[in-house]
Amino acid sequence: MVSRRKFLQGASAVWLGSGAVPASARAGVPPPVMMRSASTQVPLKPQTGRPFQPVVTLNGWSLPWTMRDGVKEFHLAAQPVVREIAPGMTANLWGYNGQSPGPTLECVEGERIRIFVTNQLPEATTIHWHGIPVPNGMDGVAGVTQPPIEPGETWQYEFVMPRSGTFMYHPHADDMMQMAMGMMGCIVVHPREPRSMKVDRDYVFLINAYDIEPGSYTPRTNTMTDFNIWSWNSRVFPGIEPLFAHLGERVRIRIGNLSMTNHPIHLHGHSFEVTGTDGGWVPKSARWPEVTVDVAAGQMRVIEFVADAPGDWAFHCHKSHHTMNAMGHQVPNMLGVDLQATTDKLRKLVPDYMAMGERGMGAMADMGMPLPENTLPMMTGQGPHGAIGMGGMFTLLKVRNRAASGLAAEEWYTGPAGERARKLG
Amino acid sequence: MVSRRKFLQGASAVWLGSGAVPASARAGVPPPVMMRSASTQVPLKPQTGRPFQPVVTLNGWSLPWTMRDGVKEFHLAAQPVVREIAPGMTANLWGYNGQSPGPTLECVEGERIRIFVTNQLPEATTIHWHGIPVPNGMDGVAGVTQPPIEPGETWQYEFVMPRSGTFMYHPHADDMMQMAMGMMGCIVVHPREPRSMKVDRDYVFLINAYDIEPGSYTPRTNTMTDFNIWSWNSRVFPGIEPLFAHLGERVRIRIGNLSMTNHPIHLHGHSFEVTGTDGGWVPKSARWPEVTVDVAAGQMRVIEFVADAPGDWAFHCHKSHHTMNAMGHQVPNMLGVDLQATTDKLRKLVPDYMAMGERGMGAMADMGMPLPENTLPMMTGQGPHGAIGMGGMFTLLKVRNRAASGLAAEEWYTGPAGERARKLG
Amino acid sequence: MVSRRKFLQGASAVWLGSGAVPASARAGVPPPVMMRSASTQVPLKPQTGRPFQPVVTLNGWSLPWTMRDGVKEFHLAAQPVVREIAPGMTANLWGYNGQSPGPTLECVEGERIRIFVTNQLPEATTIHWHGIPVPNGMDGVAGVTQPPIEPGETWQYEFVMPRSGTFMYHPHADDMMQMAMGMMGCIVVHPREPRSMKVDRDYVFLINAYDIEPGSYTPRTNTMTDFNIWSWNSRVFPGIEPLFAHLGERVRIRIGNLSMTNHPIHLHGHSFEVTGTDGGWVPKSARWPEVTVDVAAGQMRVIEFVADAPGDWAFHCHKSHHTMNAMGHQVPNMLGVDLQATTDKLRKLVPDYMAMGERGMGAMADMGMPLPENTLPMMTGQGPHGAIGMGGMFTLLKVRNRAASGLAAEEWYTGPAGERARKLG
Repeated sequence: MVSRRKFLQGASAVWLGSGAVPASARAGVPPPVMMRSASTQVPLKPQTGRPFQPVVTLNGWSLPWTMRDGVKEFHLAAQPVVREIAPGMTANLWGYNGQSPGPTLECVEGERIRIFVTNQLPEATTIHWHGIPVPNGMDGVAGVTQPPIEPGETWQYEFVMPRSGTFMYHPHADDMMQMAMGMMGCIVVHPREPRSMKVDRDYVFLINAYDIEPGSYTPRTNTMTDFNIWSWNSRVFPGIEPLFAHLGERVRIRIGNLSMTNHPIHLHGHSFEVTGTDGGWVPKSARWPEVTVDVAAGQMRVIEFVADAPGDWAFHCHKSHHTMNAMGHQVPNMLGVDLQATTDKLRKLVPDYMAMGERGMGAMADMGMPLPENTLPMMTGQGPHGAIGMGGMFTLLKVRNRAASGLAAEEWYTGPAGERARKLG
Repeated sequence: MVSRRKFLQGASAVWLGSGAVPASARAGVPPPVMMRSASTQVPLKPQTGRPFQPVVTLNGWSLPWTMRDGVKEFHLAAQPVVREIAPGMTANLWGYNGQSPGPTLECVEGERIRIFVTNQLPEATTIHWHGIPVPNGMDGVAGVTQPPIEPGETWQYEFVMPRSGTFMYHPHADDMMQMAMGMMGCIVVHPREPRSMKVDRDYVFLINAYDIEPGSYTPRTNTMTDFNIWSWNSRVFPGIEPLFAHLGERVRIRIGNLSMTNHPIHLHGHSFEVTGTDGGWVPKSARWPEVTVDVAAGQMRVIEFVADAPGDWAFHCHKSHHTMNAMGHQVPNMLGVDLQATTDKLRKLVPDYMAMGERGMGAMADMGMPLPENTLPMMTGQGPHGAIGMGGMFTLLKVRNRAASGLAAEEWYTGPAGERARKLG
Repeated sequence: MVSRRKFLQGASAVWLGSGAVPASARAGVPPPVMMRSASTQVPLKPQTGRPFQPVVTLNGWSLPWTMRDGVKEFHLAAQPVVREIAPGMTANLWGYNGQSPGPTLECVEGERIRIFVTNQLPEATTIHWHGIPVPNGMDGVAGVTQPPIEPGETWQYEFVMPRSGTFMYHPHADDMMQMAMGMMGCIVVHPREPRSMKVDRDYVFLINAYDIEPGSYTPRTNTMTDFNIWSWNSRVFPGIEPLFAHLGERVRIRIGNLSMTNHPIHLHGHSFEVTGTDGGWVPKSARWPEVTVDVAAGQMRVIEFVADAPGDWAFHCHKSHHTMNAMGHQVPNMLGVDLQATTDKLRKLVPDYMAMGERGMGAMADMGMPLPENTLPMMTGQGPHGAIGMGGMFTLLKVRNRAASGLAAEEWYTGPAGERARKLG
């Protein structure tokens, strides 16, 4: 394991075959770069390869690469990870290179890339490059286009990126379980011509969902509809960081869905257009004005708009159950029921017992209700006007006047390394 | 509380601040107009403000306003209501001004509106103006853009309607519970130029859903998927009134979804185009011909077509469970099972016991099955050819030859005040 | 009952009324043609009526017709059927003419068709011609446009096909139950001008779903979300046959959804456009490039692309639960649990007991786990590289170089009668 900084200093010779990498050739494979933080990382400016304007992965990062004879080499390690879902809750997931989702892979239209995949899981896996027209043998479907990558093996994928756009990667072996455990990531292929489809800010994230019983750490992987962690990049509010833009900037947000249902993603204060999918860029004549884009499972939707109104704008899934955390499930409606008598009796037995919902559920956002271990309150977060009664798939787009924010043009990222960007908040 | 007629005669001076209205200024706030009927009301022709052609709210109404110094003033009272879901069933909901959904707010592009919101609920609330690009402080997100409106308080929102279109209003405080209780309504902003986007008939309604246990009155508000009342404007068939059109007229139907899932709305006998969303009007080059439009949660879809075929045309959600009422849930399939012996035995114990489903469920539409209190049969309604085996999200579009209908051009509305319009049925 | 071959030799005079066919006239009704196979049948080249290029119905067939005085006569028999879901599992369904779904009906824009419907079910039914602008009396909605067709009756529908496109047929009487039992079929109306919208290969199928308890044969028909058989034309992988194309051919796939939820259908290796819906053809200016099309319930989506990459390309629903068979439901996650001790003990009691999932679920695809009667394994199928860990809504698009495939241009169909086409596999 190497830090990202050390990794960028280079790697040695590599085996040039394809498929499973023989043991004798593994010394030449660049080691996988790991990430320990669940915060949004500073975007990765390209030092080698073709130039591009990098994306910001929400609560995520982009994977560094090695250039070898004109080929960009990435190394993904499929492995068990511990992901912080939000401060106060972690989950035992499967992911890549220390986190779930895995890192974003960035490259440029026409570049050749080589991806090493080392399987550190207890069962076989593959990687499918969702949306990318690869040669059939590189498509990553176990049994159909390749044998599965067994535990301990390293596999080598290699292809040219034929068109720009936004794609996803995920296993196509024991699909349901491996995706329900968090194995997924984004791929952004930038246009060869840098002025093409240019925007000022460019965000990307994946929609996913988990079913983790309150008090436990590992998802139930056979759940079909009744998930209780509705997340973006395996994070829930208030664990999802805000998006930033200066007033007047053109903003792109690339949203992929690898959950098991549709998510209608809604932005306040602005209307937008879908300008791209995982199938390509949408022609101008075909675009609809929207405030809510319905992203189906296995779809990528790229939205764009001009941030023309200053303020803090809610950005969330519009299925209201998906903006609640686990405790929002299976609570009976106590509206109009006189809970005082019951509460008085119960407090004799359970001193910290709190009845909830007699007059509605809103007060939950303020309460310090005792919770099972490793369990988030149903809704939480603090704003300038008090408790924000939201959880799950919710965050804010913060639009600020450039002069007021005190940020230079190049300091346009979010994340812990961009401390000055925090001023925007 | 005042009737709509009395209200239209005017109101007195008002406080001109913003945010919470102080007690000293409340005398100037026009009183909230109430509605006691769940029937479709005669459209509200504008007497003041800019001219427009009003919409018909299906099983609903538009809220009268007061003009004060060029500003349109509306007053919404958030409160517990008793809504008739269909004849034979009422529900204890939360809504606005006597009904759930609340009244439609109508105005014209460029008009300034002021909306007073009085909270008569047992918990705090806010109103978010879904899809309207308002100033950030008017966006109605508790904790983020304002403190919640506490029980007993009156809040004042004020902004200019920047563009024409169809929008929604709903709370952004204890969101999941308050929407699951029925708090929502429509906003129609008419174009400044009356000939723009003109149609002959213009309908609007919201899709919602409730989980009310048979025999009870109050929704379970933490349900995520397993609803049993699938409704339009908190009504189910045969409680949903028909839509009318004369042959050859251009018809618009504006459909918003504030339930927790997608609803594919299907019209018989006609194909249509989506001409607008809550994000704006869809350019002609981008429109698709459709017979079923999938409306995601938090989306508005405006469909238009020419009523070019006379007759009674079914108009419904195409998820077949959503055209059944509560008794359609959790009934085992008795197909091919000989129920006679069992029935004979049970009738000795329970004289009115009826076995169902041995040869299918269709006969249910004709049966007078004993039901729990306040519970609708699974499917019901009578047509010219016998029982209509439908419930839930189902109604009819009645297209009639103008000469045959005997209606003058201006009598184009539905509802109890338009008795002659009933002839169309 | 007659075989398709015998049927094509003709039929005698028919009653020319409409509605229920009186007993005296039934001798003139052509007998319903039956199908005993669940395999994809050779496309039906038109011998009479206007010329067209026939479609291939995936694991299905097209219904032969009789021409009488320029009218195409079809006969559908609504009846209980036994459908093979995949080798190893059959289901007691309701369908038409021996199978579920019923046969595809093919005709040409402007043709007049007459459809006899004989009800051999234990309860009343009707047929609605979804998407076709028929006269109101032909619309097939029980109670609204006609009385239901009682058991034993034959009904006659007749209308002109006003526009080309892809449509569906299904009952509008006891809708939920009859569709949950498998009553549905496709209608393809070819353009009057054969060069219009021409493609090289043209496939059609319907998405449906069943809830059949492992070990049983008859669906539970009141299920709303928790189905366990996610099928295409009432088949699941590996029972769904592959689609074929020669390299460079333009391929059309017409996909209708009569299940109770959205299905995002994903194709590997190619991007495509939606060129048509059940509402009409989509103008070029309005089309989006896609790799996953979300098909809502009650929608038809027609996709087109050029098969420009040789190989076996996965084609499946992207909700990963929908690519699993029944045993994928309600299995707890045993990841990291030491099952050996438990297994040892259980084997003393149950000799063939197998623990599963300790290291993931992928190994299930290889295991010979004992299963209840009439129950498919969770995932199954064999490819050139071993077990394919998929079930449900999954198949392959096989793209082959024409020279290598050894097929003549006219041998472009799949199915058992096209044995040489099997070489493509």
